[in-house]
Amino acid sequence: MKIVFIGAGNLATHLSLALQQMGEQIVQVYSRTKTSASELAALLSVPYTTSTDKIIADADVYFYTVSDDALESLVQLPFATNAIHVHTAGSVSMDIFQGKKKNFGVFYPLQTFSKAKQVNFNKIPLFIEASSPEVETELFRLAHVVSEQVYRTNSEQRLKLHVSAVFACNFVNHMYQIAFEMVKSADLPFEVLKPLILETAEKVMHLSPEQAQTGPAKRNDQGVINKHLEVLVELPALKQLYQDLSDMILNQYLHQS
Amino acid sequence: MKIVFIGAGNLATHLSLALQQMGEQIVQVYSRTKTSASELAALLSVPYTTSTDKIIADADVYFYTVSDDALESLVQLPFATNAIHVHTAGSVSMDIFQGKKKNFGVFYPLQTFSKAKQVNFNKIPLFIEASSPEVETELFRLAHVVSEQVYRTNSEQRLKLHVSAVFACNFVNHMYQIAFEMVKSADLPFEVLKPLILETAEKVMHLSPEQAQTGPAKRNDQGVINKHLEVLVELPALKQLYQDLSDMILNQYLHQS
Repeated sequence: MKIVFIGAGNLATHLSLALQQMGEQIVQVYSRTKTSASELAALLSVPYTTSTDKIIADADVYFYTVSDDALESLVQLPFATNAIHVHTAGSVSMDIFQGKKKNFGVFYPLQTFSKAKQVNFNKIPLFIEASSPEVETELFRLAHVVSEQVYRTNSEQRLKLHVSAVFACNFVNHMYQIAFEMVKSADLPFEVLKPLILETAEKVMHLSPEQAQTGPAKRNDQGVINKHLEVLVELPALKQLYQDLSDMILNQYLHQS
Repeated sequence: MKIVFIGAGNLATHLSLALQQMGEQIVQVYSRTKTSASELAALLSVPYTTSTDKIIADADVYFYTVSDDALESLVQLPFATNAIHVHTAGSVSMDIFQGKKKNFGVFYPLQTFSKAKQVNFNKIPLFIEASSPEVETELFRLAHVVSEQVYRTNSEQRLKLHVSAVFACNFVNHMYQIAFEMVKSADLPFEVLKPLILETAEKVMHLSPEQAQTGPAKRNDQGVINKHLEVLVELPALKQLYQDLSDMILNQYLHQS
């Protein structure tokens, strides 16, 4: 199986390297940005192109690891119509390929990728959708090459999964960002929060988030909540956020008791 | 040094056991709730009381590990005025002891404690404040008995630290809760989110939260954001939260570019 990567960002880098390390044959990298294309191609020791006209036409699988907007225009290109075309986006329906390609699917990894941070692909859940049982078999095979956890999901499930991931990752990271700025304003290093951050994540490996919750909002401790709102008085957006999230937690536990 | 624990909740349990394991002498547990008092006393093999009149008067250190409201009334009790009296609350000033006790301080551990989950006290940062250099020396000694990370902080710093911890722990856990409900509504198990949750926490051990951020809000990808808001259309509080947090992230990265 010859594989072409269309896109050369964080996900393309991690996924193509993982596939190649497991013996799959990456034959080309396309990116409209020369720096990205050449950097990833060098890591993989394969040719690259920045011109859609020069994308190899006889590969077996084309991975589209690009922004949703770029995907929209790239799927219009009439090359390799008999190959398998796969996108990796959480919030794009598989049907984007409908009428343009014969064999297609989705290969969605649920993880946060930054170039500066290595990840173990083997532990990343992959979510597969395919246009036919034959394509599904091939995508499951490729998925199992790089990961232990492979699931079949439709486009609607995948969209909800992406929303979940925004809460569990991007919004969580923004909470870290707010905490980072707050400890800095108290002349303390971010290091003091690290054990708490790790323990909070590790707790929900064993307990449900509902069982794991602690803090003033869960206890309905208005004295502490009011002191904290007072600290945030000159940061109205954060004060409102603190109030909203405390109300949500409070309501969750009130309804249970 | 003889130590009395006033309060027998999650923190009292973890802290008293850690101190005892390192050779410190716990002599009594007080709690107004008989079940809590007797359970912790049994774990420590020490006597307990549920009556404030029977709190031992000749101990050296009294740890108040109770709610802020309970602390307010317990500090009024006129016992052991020459001993060291220490509370463990993030958002209560050390001055609560002023005029009531001669030697006092604060011993604040930054961690989330649930009875169902063991923690390694050694890795928990402790924040110390003391009424005199002599009390500080003694509290630093006790702190180093159980933890590698001990800091000196005043009451204002500690209050900001507590606010940070609410964001980095309680609000993060609530993001997990929302994600939990969302994957459930997609008929998927919470397990699929666990590698993402761990990686998101581990990333900020090495990168700043600012460097670690990913996702549609950071990329200002309105197409994805609008699809996600559509998914949340029947959950108005969550839709508003998604919008507010996306706006905050968007603004953070816009101001930088």
